Amino acid sequence: MLQKVNIHDKLNQFSEHWNPKIVGELNHQHVKLAKLKGEFVWHKHDEEDELFFIISGELKIEFRDHNVMLSPGEFLIIPKGVEHKPVAENEVEVMLFEPISTLNTGDAIDSRTRPNLDEI
Amino acid sequence: MLQKVNIHDKLNQFSEHWNPKIVGELNHQHVKLAKLKGEFVWHKHDEEDELFFIISGELKIEFRDHNVMLSPGEFLIIPKGVEHKPVAENEVEVMLFEPISTLNTGDAIDSRTRPNLDEI
Repeated sequence: MLQKVNIHDKLNQFSEHWNPKIVGELNHQHVKLAKLKGEFVWHKHDEEDELFFIISGELKIEFRDHNVMLSPGEFLIIPKGVEHKPVAENEVEVMLFEPISTLNTGDAIDSRTRPNLDEI
Repeated sequence: MLQKVNIHDKLNQFSEHWNPKIVGELNHQHVKLAKLKGEFVWHKHDEEDELFFIISGELKIEFRDHNVMLSPGEFLIIPKGVEHKPVAENEVEVMLFEPISTLNTGDAIDSRTRPNLDEI
């Protein structure tokens, strides 16, 4: 029997920031949920395009030459190789779609790098 | 400059049922939006897993041995090879994630088969 996922139920199961949780897998891609607050690190993903879909809050994604502001119901696809830095002045809840191989900090290893994500 | 997508703006651009629109592409996957109403055809996708994420309305997905009811904020991943039939008593808005190769009616070719989807 197939199990549906309620993203709000899943978001209620954790509170930490910058630590995506795996909530689904299909076609070698992961569906993840994350809570973001503050400034992340500049990074890029050399091999993976990445989708940010905003569930709640306002997320700024900085690029080297422009910024994009995202609100609930909006998504942005960041092509592989493009440097970016997510910035959340207040808490933001996001759904992510990206290949299973994707590391959260891409090519920038720091204290927030999470090589092994929890499934919830 | 990267362009964000507002899914509500995109959903306002069409009204027909069972005709998914392409709104994004990443990692050889398409992000699609669709409006569903009524009963679809029984079908399966031999090579592709498929994700239904509910934006508005209530969607029943029938399987041969059980049904799953989906509400806004919920998603279901249907593994490749699994026969299913979406049924929407009232209009439902959904976001779909699936490989570029995915045909909406899978292995069941009928009048609602859409081999060439519009990008909006």
